[in-house]
Parts: sequence; structure tokens; C-alpha cells
Amino acid sequence: MKQDRISSGNQEQQIKPYKKDGDYSYTLGAFPTYELIKSRPQMVRKVLVDTSFTDQEHLKSLCREQQIPLEYNNKLIMKLSDKENCYVAGVFEKYSCTMRADKPHIVLVNPSNMGNLGTILRTAVGFGIFNLAVILPGADIYHPKTVRASMGALFKLNFHLYESFEEYQKEFPGHEIFTFMLNGEKTLTLKECPKAELFTLVFGNEATGLDDSFLRVGTSIFIPQSPEVDSLNLTIAVGIGAYAFMNR
Amino acid sequence: MKQDRISSGNQEQQIKPYKKDGDYSYTLGAFPTYELIKSRPQMVRKVLVDTSFTDQEHLKSLCREQQIPLEYNNKLIMKLSDKENCYVAGVFEKYSCTMRADKPHIVLVNPSNMGNLGTILRTAVGFGIFNLAVILPGADIYHPKTVRASMGALFKLNFHLYESFEEYQKEFPGHEIFTFMLNGEKTLTLKECPKAELFTLVFGNEATGLDDSFLRVGTSIFIPQSPEVDSLNLTIAVGIGAYAFMNR
Repeated sequence: MKQDRISSGNQEQQIKPYKKDGDYSYTLGAFPTYELIKSRPQMVRKVLVDTSFTDQEHLKSLCREQQIPLEYNNKLIMKLSDKENCYVAGVFEKYSCTMRADKPHIVLVNPSNMGNLGTILRTAVGFGIFNLAVILPGADIYHPKTVRASMGALFKLNFHLYESFEEYQKEFPGHEIFTFMLNGEKTLTLKECPKAELFTLVFGNEATGLDDSFLRVGTSIFIPQSPEVDSLNLTIAVGIGAYAFMNR
Repeated sequence: MKQDRISSGNQEQQIKPYKKDGDYSYTLGAFPTYELIKSRPQMVRKVLVDTSFTDQEHLKSLCREQQIPLEYNNKLIMKLSDKENCYVAGVFEKYSCTMRADKPHIVLVNPSNMGNLGTILRTAVGFGIFNLAVILPGADIYHPKTVRASMGALFKLNFHLYESFEEYQKEFPGHEIFTFMLNGEKTLTLKECPKAELFTLVFGNEATGLDDSFLRVGTSIFIPQSPEVDSLNLTIAVGIGAYAFMNR
């Protein structure tokens, strides 16, 4: 794979296209980059900016405040983003978080689509759920596509990756578990959303959902839907679940 | 643009890549093609199938029942789909529908993304709303990408395109209007979803939402959300709105 050498600043450091097993990733676009700088300034290696970007003063002052190197590099941004209209990129260290034991959680079991994962992060934060686990294997939460779809919401929540649901559950025995399944026992309606002090909402893979072993883990929930569709889109199911449980 | 000549059947007819101003479009993939044949058989010009498709007998018998021509054409499917794993395509006439005056509606004002539009069609049908209007300009509802994202739900509902919201409203004076806006006056909670006999849920463009003139059209609704996000994704907002109003 070809590499770009940074054209100014530290001549030793090279920025390469995203790699799943690398130790850094990117925000592509001004909005998620601002969110990165504001929420996780200590994780930012540098910010890349295109010379034609129109909001340079604001970006410069944000970077100055947080002592983040800023570099003009049109060619590298173009290479990283594959898009015409991307003028800013942030380079950040991959990190992971400790999920809070006293807050509600969302658990995604083997999500496969990065766009969906990002949209779900944005939706979780939108409804006030700031702790989220992904059970592996799953879509790459650090991938620039996920970050972009999240609109930077990735940086606002505590996320953690687990090898199995059991591993997650062992760590948080105090959470009441609600599994969202097409054959769920309890129908979620406006008047009958279960009440729980501390809860975890669990959702399966886009194509396969949760397997039947999850019927025996906590309470299984069915979102009422027409037989005219195969199922709801995963992001919609998470949206309905988060909205209902957070607005009881 | 290069054209493929149909390799069997009617030698006069040519199938070209999708065009916005053409009079036909495609379903790409077996699932939406089955939905097309089942819901709108009279609109199907022909079904294309790849010789390696594994469910040929079922597809053949469906086509036979509806007297739809079926043609083996690996090369054309590949060309239309741009994907490796597409084995079936349906060619259908563009059509439009009459929306029912006695049923709830969704109105999308200038939606810009075809993936979102398709997901919204799927979600509307999932929650039992089978009448939907798009106010132009907007994403192309007939485009194969929209059809694919809808998982064939396009064929199960009555949709109509309008040049303006006023044109829509003139046709359906009996519907109570609810506009979803970040500065909406009424907050949508589980216990306080407005009651209306016959309603229209109105949603704006992904980036700009509904402009303030919509504050004076019916009742404006705010879906409670954290200030940590710019806004909810449009598809999530429609999902929450449809779920709440259809499950009171």
C-alpha cells in the first residue's frame, strides 16, 4: 500500500489509509472532527485541513486550545476520504472505555453494517443512553464509515467490545436484560413498556436477529409490526426500544 | 451509454441502465423481486435470472402464475446491479397510486437520500401506514437503490408525488396534520401522544428539517432528544412517529 509522508510538521510520522488492526483512525468531515476535539481531545494526534476550508479560524482556535497539531494537506485528505467535499479530517488513537455500571446500556450482538452501527450510536446518544457494548464479531466501531455515520456520537459515549454476551453479562449482573426478538414474549406498546431501574436493551444481527437462546435471557420484547414486512430495520428497532425505555 | 440487447425472447426490446426520466425501473435481488411479483404483478415487464440462482423453481412458478416472461441473462443482471451477489432482477413499469383519504398518511418534504427513503417506506409498512406522499423535489422513489432499501415495501403502499405541500393538503382536507420539528410545540412522550381520528405525519429534509412556516400548519411535534446530538436521523424520527401514532 502506498504511503503519504506528512508534508509539514513531524517528518517521521506517516499517515496511512485506515487499517482495522492499526492503532489509529479518522474522522472525515468538519462536524465529526469538531465532536472529536470537544469530547476526546486527548485522543487526537492531529487535524488535517484542506486549504479551501471556509471555517479555518474556528478550527485553528479549537486546536490551539487543546494543543492539537493542525496541518494543511489537501492531497492526504482526498486520499483518506475518497470524496470531493471533505475538507477536514481528524487522526485519533483508538481507545476503549469502561461502561458505567449505574447507567442503562445497549448491547449489539454481532452487528454487521458500519452505517447501521454509526446510526445506532447517534440514536443512543440522542435518547440519552451513553453506554454501549458490541459483542464480537461485529462491524468495526472505529472505522471512519462508522464514525461518520455516528456524526461524532462515538466520542460521546462509553463503548466496549466483548468476545461474548456471557462476558458482558458477568460484568454487569445488576442490569435487567431485555432482548428484542420477533418471537419476543412481551409486546412493546406505549402503555406497556416494562419498568426497570437499571436495564440493558439487547439487539441481534441485521439479517439473523438474536437466536432463540436469548429467549431465556431476561425478558424478550416484540415491537408490534405488520406481517407485510420481513422485520423492521435494525436501526429503527433500536430507536423504538431506546425511545420507549427512556421516555416511560 | 452502451445498451444490452435481450439475448432471448423479444429481440426488439432493450433493457438499459436505470434512468430517472425512463418509464421503467428494477428490483435488484430475489427478495424485492418476489415482493414486486406478489404485490404488483401487472407492472412487471419481465424477470431476469442468473443461471446460478438456487431458487429457480419457485421463481419460475411465480412468473408462470402471473404470466410474466422470465429470462436468463447473467451479463445484464451484472450490468444493472453492479454487485457480485445479485442473481435476480425484475423490470417494472413506473406507476403512481391514489392515496386513500380514509387512512393515515406520512408526508416527506424534500427527502434527499434514496437509502433513507427506502428505509422509511419499509418502516411505514412495518407500522401499518400504507399511504405516503413525497413533496418534490425529492429523492427518486423509483430508483433501484430506493426499491432495494425498501426491501420491496414500495410495492405494498400507495405513494404519490406532489409539487408542493399545499397541493397535497388541498387533496386531503380531512387529515389532522402533525409536523415533526426540533422546535415543535408538543413533546411526544409515551403517555402524551396526540389523539386524532385521521392524521398525517409530516417530516422534513435530512439536513434542513421543516422550515418554520410548518409551525403554523397543524400541530408541531418534538421528539424528546438529548442536546448531545444535532438531531435524530430522519429514518429514526419517522420510525418513532409512526410507532407512537399507530400504537396509542
